[in-house]
Amino acid sequence: MRILLTNDDGVYAPGLAALYQSLSARHQVTVVAPESEQSAVGHAITLADPIRVRPLRPRSGLTGWAVRGTPADCVKLGLNELMPRPPELVVSGINLGANVGVNVLYSGTVSAATEAAILGLPGLAVSLDTHQPQADFSFAARFIAHLVERLPLPGQPPLVPLNVNVPALPPDQIRGVRFCRQSRARLVEEFIPRQDPRGNTYYWLGGETLGSEGGPETDFVALAQGYITITPIRHDLTHEAALSAMKSFTLELPE
Amino acid sequence: MRILLTNDDGVYAPGLAALYQSLSARHQVTVVAPESEQSAVGHAITLADPIRVRPLRPRSGLTGWAVRGTPADCVKLGLNELMPRPPELVVSGINLGANVGVNVLYSGTVSAATEAAILGLPGLAVSLDTHQPQADFSFAARFIAHLVERLPLPGQPPLVPLNVNVPALPPDQIRGVRFCRQSRARLVEEFIPRQDPRGNTYYWLGGETLGSEGGPETDFVALAQGYITITPIRHDLTHEAALSAMKSFTLELPE
Repeated sequence: MRILLTNDDGVYAPGLAALYQSLSARHQVTVVAPESEQSAVGHAITLADPIRVRPLRPRSGLTGWAVRGTPADCVKLGLNELMPRPPELVVSGINLGANVGVNVLYSGTVSAATEAAILGLPGLAVSLDTHQPQADFSFAARFIAHLVERLPLPGQPPLVPLNVNVPALPPDQIRGVRFCRQSRARLVEEFIPRQDPRGNTYYWLGGETLGSEGGPETDFVALAQGYITITPIRHDLTHEAALSAMKSFTLELPE
Repeated sequence: MRILLTNDDGVYAPGLAALYQSLSARHQVTVVAPESEQSAVGHAITLADPIRVRPLRPRSGLTGWAVRGTPADCVKLGLNELMPRPPELVVSGINLGANVGVNVLYSGTVSAATEAAILGLPGLAVSLDTHQPQADFSFAARFIAHLVERLPLPGQPPLVPLNVNVPALPPDQIRGVRFCRQSRARLVEEFIPRQDPRGNTYYWLGGETLGSEGGPETDFVALAQGYITITPIRHDLTHEAALSAMKSFTLELPE
């Protein structure tokens, strides 16, 4: 299969290298990934700036391109311009840090898989639940190669992308795979004010994840319990229940 | 009411000034908006860089702060640090250009309203359906002041943000208000390759909106027909139908 591989940690991140290695054994993998870290860019695309692209050097061990843009840019550009034949699957990751709960909204990793769906391709986003840069991505990479062979999963509409989170545990401690909903776990933000040498104030956004709202069927809880979580993702943001409830109301125009 | 006013076109955009004027007549409006244009940043937040903030000068005619960050940063920072008393409503806009169909995902304007909901506040995103910088925002601004008096609308859960699009028509040609779902209208991208003076290739992302998929009940179609559209927005990206269909499948771990 032709796979476009991207991420949001940047083209030289070890999580991407691990996926490249595990997927290239059986697939034709082309990297189209951001040149530098793009974490928390969400579904940003680059309109106001030109997007630079350079081919990866053979010594990088990767085939493909580094892009001065966001993960969504990479998917669009890979599909429309760079790859001689369009990919059959977009894989994004392995992200350093889980993408569960509200983090899914901020995640460049997940947005690449969503962008694939918008463009008519199956997509897969993968994250490892640790912030240790020395993390071992090998089991997660092996799991994704295993998952790719089984796509689409029974019941999965082919254009519904999957958001996969893998616990950072030794393989024999991983309890299995759970299909989960996105929890409402949110960040508790804390802004840390600092002064620059000229006395101007600036802020750093700090934050940590709050406990989950919702039960064991959420990504947040199942991941913490040692399960690999898989959440199917939608990109239609309509709140169906609210729309049904509001539809019969007539709002007049102002005078 | 205490209103936090933000946008993604930047603090000096005329769409923001129009809303400031129409809302300040009856409300205490505080601007917390990006210093420069942030279009298509989606739900990006700033983690890897410090966020600079400066108070707006009185001669700007606005009260509040300019923030070197994204619309979502502005909402977080306004609520957590800048405003002495927390806002009761977040209004984002008026954006130059409609936010319908898949554009909703890329939109910094909409993400500010979504961020409000995440933080427990009602939110409203407003866009005018034109790309003419000389556009007349006054009717749209008047409509939003009228809408704010009526929040929450009958049937609207208070924490479900609304995405409002207003046609760029003379007021007497606007046909009414429609509650609509997000259409699947997507962009057809075109990348325009250029060469820099040193022979390196770069790309501009061009693109135009494709015709709508879906009927007259979508934002895309109703807006084009001359209606103001209101779409309630969700930030749980779980694809419910796919999850139900997949849940009974057991995926084994790899060997």
